[in-house]
Amino acid sequence: MRRRDFTKAALLGAAGSLAAPAVVKAQAAFNWRMTSFYGPNAAFYSTGPGSAKDLCKRIEEMSGGRLKIQFYGAGELIPAAEGFDAVSSGTVEMNYANSYFWTGKSFAAQYFTAVPFGLNYQGFNGWYYDGGGRELWREVYDKFNLVPFACGNTGVQMTGWFRKEIKTVDDLKGVKMRIPGLAGRVYKELGVDARLIAPGEIFPNLERGVIDAAEFVGPYLDRQLGLHKVAKYYYTTGWHEMATTSELTINKAKWESLPPDLKAIVENACAACNVISEAWCQKNNAEAYEDLVKNQGVIAQPLPDDVVKALRAATTKILAEAVEKDPITKKVHESYFAYKAKYDDWADKSELVYHTKIRRAI
Amino acid sequence: MRRRDFTKAALLGAAGSLAAPAVVKAQAAFNWRMTSFYGPNAAFYSTGPGSAKDLCKRIEEMSGGRLKIQFYGAGELIPAAEGFDAVSSGTVEMNYANSYFWTGKSFAAQYFTAVPFGLNYQGFNGWYYDGGGRELWREVYDKFNLVPFACGNTGVQMTGWFRKEIKTVDDLKGVKMRIPGLAGRVYKELGVDARLIAPGEIFPNLERGVIDAAEFVGPYLDRQLGLHKVAKYYYTTGWHEMATTSELTINKAKWESLPPDLKAIVENACAACNVISEAWCQKNNAEAYEDLVKNQGVIAQPLPDDVVKALRAATTKILAEAVEKDPITKKVHESYFAYKAKYDDWADKSELVYHTKIRRAI
Repeated sequence: MRRRDFTKAALLGAAGSLAAPAVVKAQAAFNWRMTSFYGPNAAFYSTGPGSAKDLCKRIEEMSGGRLKIQFYGAGELIPAAEGFDAVSSGTVEMNYANSYFWTGKSFAAQYFTAVPFGLNYQGFNGWYYDGGGRELWREVYDKFNLVPFACGNTGVQMTGWFRKEIKTVDDLKGVKMRIPGLAGRVYKELGVDARLIAPGEIFPNLERGVIDAAEFVGPYLDRQLGLHKVAKYYYTTGWHEMATTSELTINKAKWESLPPDLKAIVENACAACNVISEAWCQKNNAEAYEDLVKNQGVIAQPLPDDVVKALRAATTKILAEAVEKDPITKKVHESYFAYKAKYDDWADKSELVYHTKIRRAI
Repeated sequence: MRRRDFTKAALLGAAGSLAAPAVVKAQAAFNWRMTSFYGPNAAFYSTGPGSAKDLCKRIEEMSGGRLKIQFYGAGELIPAAEGFDAVSSGTVEMNYANSYFWTGKSFAAQYFTAVPFGLNYQGFNGWYYDGGGRELWREVYDKFNLVPFACGNTGVQMTGWFRKEIKTVDDLKGVKMRIPGLAGRVYKELGVDARLIAPGEIFPNLERGVIDAAEFVGPYLDRQLGLHKVAKYYYTTGWHEMATTSELTINKAKWESLPPDLKAIVENACAACNVISEAWCQKNNAEAYEDLVKNQGVIAQPLPDDVVKALRAATTKILAEAVEKDPITKKVHESYFAYKAKYDDWADKSELVYHTKIRRAI
């Protein structure tokens, strides 16, 4: 060690209740790489409080530099969609994404990001940390040599931006909409022409009329894309993603190679980013929502009840088919919805009452 | 170092992408003490996921034993109510409590635990992490040589247990109720005989009829006290504490003596316990609520709207008086409610819609 370090350590000890002797030991150090589904500067996902870069920084700080993680946004090292396989094979140690991008590997992956008409932030955390969700996620990913962690959350997402008002289920027929994944499959049941478009291409496609509608995240990130400039109807009822969990995956052998202190550091950093990223979304969505409605001429409203009903029926049908086909999906589905049934009764007496009778004068 | 450790470290390196050389340095080690407002075995507060003991364990694990914290429940080292002064003077390094126990030091401390008709869990976290709340808390505590951290949350608490049904505001007059702090002052405005009773004394007092009603926390912890056995009316509308934040206070000089990695470890452990403790409450309250209503004959209902209105009016009056008297309380109050105003508009389009239209079929 350098003399400067030794002096500093001794001084810190003197000032700081040094009852234990200084610890001197050789400690393994790791230089790892984290790839991501999202671009290198994507707000929330890659930059800002609770993001992938912040997660790397927290781990490096807590480990005193013993676990350094070099972050690569989508396309910097590998393409966005290759993160799962890259970590599975050990090409990179870590990847940041959302599990629902990997439903092609196992449909059950959907449940660890968000399920339409499923759990919100507080509900998901209860299931994940205490209701068996974390263990099931590990079980689903185990055969791919991956260890998954919840490491962020957007909270409630918005339905999205439409160039024309949606008054009935029929108004959805033929609408060309950017909407990925399971939600896209649900809309297709209602006649929507659902399309997969990368975030950077949403604005130009909506502006040129190639698409009529687009879902992205929530007020803050949607405004960054400029979607309000080319579509005025903002449907707010985020039926499809009530709380969208970010995932960190770690190659299983690499994870097992970490000593216990670094494992604990990674686990706690993920939990910290879970709450800190969601808080950031609440703060920034509240401000962006106010700006969009007050200053940008946006018409914000929930989807009509009949449309929500039709979306729910289509969701139920698709999930039932998936459960029928695949035993591990059935196992995860049953755990998730058994948890939700109890959570719903409790939320009726807690958060529902807060939102309907307490936070505003009745 | 022992040979065994060296071999282990080398093996770990070989298996775990050791690109960096092993780090060898002398590191300051700390043996600290944490006292608590709560008993040594109190569920949620002292034991279980996200509790004070779990917080100590996480810090010790992440630091590889360099920051060891010996936990003392209330009465084991000092009485419950002396934690603030003990940390302020440096007698102990850390204390676990809720800030609203210290409103005698500064009324502003109330806002960092819970404010009647105030922010819920997601709202509070947005204000705390990103809306200036954390910085204001540090400002309020600075003159007491304390550095505060949010390190846990109960989520929505319940109004409490009543031996007789409450149908009108008049029914509250003369009711002898265990209810501490600001909520007690609010009830007094409505004629309640509000009393401060330690948790362990609530059940015998309610059983013997010394009191007619009692507030504690939520279904899981209330059931542990056995309150449902001696009062059947469970009022669920937790108007007084929509999300009750646990605080960790650290003596300022001791905090400043920590090296950057241990500071980061403490901060991230607190954030992790914040989300993990709240998730634990959601899970366990949901199960306990179901049991109380289905198996224990409890009549669970929200307070009548007129009672809620009267409680709101009394709260507004008391907060206005506090703001008038004290500049730092005014500053905190204005920051908190300015944040809440924006959060309310956003929550109307996000969580409110989730609870009213999405999680159950409409």
